[in-house]
Amino acid sequence: MLRSWYNENMKKMNTSPISGMQELLPEAQATFDKLKNKISEVYHQHGFLNIETSIIERSDILLAKAGGDTEKQIYKVVKTAETADDADQALRFDHTVPLARYVVEHESNLSFPFKVTQIGRNYRGERAQKGRFREFYQCDVDVVGRGSLPLYYDADVIATLLDAFSRFDLKTPVLARISNRKILSGLIAEYNLDAKAGEIFNIIDHSEKVPEEKTKAAFSEIGLGTERVEMMMKFIDIHGTIKEVVKKLDGLGIKNAVFASGVKELEQVLSTLDADGYSDSIEADMKIVRGLDYYTGTVFEFNLPEYKQVGSVCGGGRYDNLAGYFTDQKFPGVGGSIGLTRLFYVLAENNLVKSQVEKPVSIAVVPISDNELEYAMKVAKEWRDKGETVTIVATDKRLGDKLNYAAKIAKKAIVLGDNEVKTGIYEIKEFN
Amino acid sequence: MLRSWYNENMKKMNTSPISGMQELLPEAQATFDKLKNKISEVYHQHGFLNIETSIIERSDILLAKAGGDTEKQIYKVVKTAETADDADQALRFDHTVPLARYVVEHESNLSFPFKVTQIGRNYRGERAQKGRFREFYQCDVDVVGRGSLPLYYDADVIATLLDAFSRFDLKTPVLARISNRKILSGLIAEYNLDAKAGEIFNIIDHSEKVPEEKTKAAFSEIGLGTERVEMMMKFIDIHGTIKEVVKKLDGLGIKNAVFASGVKELEQVLSTLDADGYSDSIEADMKIVRGLDYYTGTVFEFNLPEYKQVGSVCGGGRYDNLAGYFTDQKFPGVGGSIGLTRLFYVLAENNLVKSQVEKPVSIAVVPISDNELEYAMKVAKEWRDKGETVTIVATDKRLGDKLNYAAKIAKKAIVLGDNEVKTGIYEIKEFN
Repeated sequence: MLRSWYNENMKKMNTSPISGMQELLPEAQATFDKLKNKISEVYHQHGFLNIETSIIERSDILLAKAGGDTEKQIYKVVKTAETADDADQALRFDHTVPLARYVVEHESNLSFPFKVTQIGRNYRGERAQKGRFREFYQCDVDVVGRGSLPLYYDADVIATLLDAFSRFDLKTPVLARISNRKILSGLIAEYNLDAKAGEIFNIIDHSEKVPEEKTKAAFSEIGLGTERVEMMMKFIDIHGTIKEVVKKLDGLGIKNAVFASGVKELEQVLSTLDADGYSDSIEADMKIVRGLDYYTGTVFEFNLPEYKQVGSVCGGGRYDNLAGYFTDQKFPGVGGSIGLTRLFYVLAENNLVKSQVEKPVSIAVVPISDNELEYAMKVAKEWRDKGETVTIVATDKRLGDKLNYAAKIAKKAIVLGDNEVKTGIYEIKEFN
Repeated sequence: MLRSWYNENMKKMNTSPISGMQELLPEAQATFDKLKNKISEVYHQHGFLNIETSIIERSDILLAKAGGDTEKQIYKVVKTAETADDADQALRFDHTVPLARYVVEHESNLSFPFKVTQIGRNYRGERAQKGRFREFYQCDVDVVGRGSLPLYYDADVIATLLDAFSRFDLKTPVLARISNRKILSGLIAEYNLDAKAGEIFNIIDHSEKVPEEKTKAAFSEIGLGTERVEMMMKFIDIHGTIKEVVKKLDGLGIKNAVFASGVKELEQVLSTLDADGYSDSIEADMKIVRGLDYYTGTVFEFNLPEYKQVGSVCGGGRYDNLAGYFTDQKFPGVGGSIGLTRLFYVLAENNLVKSQVEKPVSIAVVPISDNELEYAMKVAKEWRDKGETVTIVATDKRLGDKLNYAAKIAKKAIVLGDNEVKTGIYEIKEFN
């Protein structure tokens, strides 16, 4: 208590990070970095190439498509005296808009299909809430075609993301829930509900977060009769293996061509994933619509079925035209993203990820006095050359204090005194 | 020509990155990432722990110490409707200020000496110039003590940075030029020039970028007589092994205690590095003063002696009190930073770094038609499980086009047709 009072009193300014920014202690950071590196490694093994775009973009690029909440949450950047001639600028809120710009700008130097990954921070200035972040890592994979892009890549993206999750050693299973927006679009057209399409997508997108009665009421409110509401409730409850789902969808008796092509695409994507060995981790699910986003075909979300309250931990889909605002050329794509900052937060909150329990340093070399420092450097270098992580404890504290410090940061210690220097023989002490 | 005209015409917006932002094609990005990963690996092997702070900080934290150019070049961030209650915010311009805040905020959870690394982007909105960047990676190492910090860690930081450079496989040597600011401070006091200390530091800091006559003239302009100017010119020309330099410094006949303690510290840091096997890569050099920065003891800069025009590629030093603006507790530290974005630019411009010539993908699996797709996925998975980077070429193009694409992205290809599926035997074709 005295200590805390003492420290607070020595502070002259508020040194907490800004609300909505995740700031980790070194141990937690090591766990976070481990997840990030695993994601990057898996993406790379599946043939995705890394790119990085600036965190600052011209506002006209960022806002070409944005609207609603996104526009309200965008962080604008004030130009400095020396950048005053530049166009208006803001911080990117996702990787998709900068990717579209990048592809249009560099298309003559890229090979298509362009399999690309971006791992970096994005910014949304939304209201502060527990577990919501204003600065957050997104780990994206995308495949961008020029002109056309085979449906195989939809499965490729989902398989890649599932492989990333499989490397996390999570203590709970992950389920990829997949649908195709053409199915719902076709159903809406079949029932002449096109005028209400946006509202219907929105109600379904929220249906998991509210009680069933609320969803029913919402359908009623936008003018659907009792029979249509029941049909919608039956539709959004369809989920399971692709065979079960196709059978149930066939049972709806819908003849619409868009509906049929959505079902066919969904079948193809899930069959590909089945053939690729992912059948235990995937499900077709008509509740997945991805809100009012820019997706046009396949859509998916990953959940932790044993932790439903956590919500989606990954999402993505197919877009017919990535860069329509920037060019008349057609770049269809499919992509997905792991929101790592939020994922890390929910995994840690629910104790679902093995923390980097290992201490960060493998060996602390502790010279008893400065007389042994030169020999300590030699010993440290030898172990470092063998690939170990080594630090020298060169403080002017008593040996006991040095060893306490060593025990906090390192797995093992090598204490060096007169005798060790003379004989060149030393012990390696293992901490518990 | 026609093609370029055609593409430009299809563009609807300017899609170039903002001036001052480095945007790389995937191959160059792979080389950049390789350097960044090597730096991170070496820092880690020397026992430095990674942390990440937000790119956005409260303006009062960032500006507590800044001034002059830094303040003019800072990017302020406009709050959004939902973050309006927050304090004024801006983008960080280095890692040192956020580190000071982090140490004060979390000190009760850290072990001191705190060996810490930060690798991330920083922002300065300065005038656009070739080879200068407004968004740039800094790769920092710092050792922060609480109360005190032995001089050994000055050598530890320099050795760590030299080890990072040694892993780059540069085609040219790197030289760490080291001095101690107490030497010049003592000399200035001895000659009663304290009132001109700031100007003298500044003139010496710029002396390598201008002809000798200009430096002389600058000393004259601030009021130094001919004899003093000659003495200063002689002083800043002192460089070489620590033995040579100590001898020449002794020859100046200066009795000042600060001067003497600077020489003693410099001698200790260089002897430590000599003993640690770095004698070929270090030099004591009185031209190194690090301008008007916050350093109080050891200062250093790394150069490429065969490419003098490139200037400093790394720099750092010792500061007596890292967080003086934020707390009354004393946190002395020593640190250094590789400015990776600029370094990468100059290495590439001078053809000094081996580019990631290897193609990013090791094996492209090419099914002749969709009939072989399932088998292709099986083959891809087998190779991926062996640790290879594998992509499937699933476009609906002719085989020749698929192989052209494969040759661009991959080292080897496996073409799969009817026969390969039937027999389970396939060839691995190596591209040149």
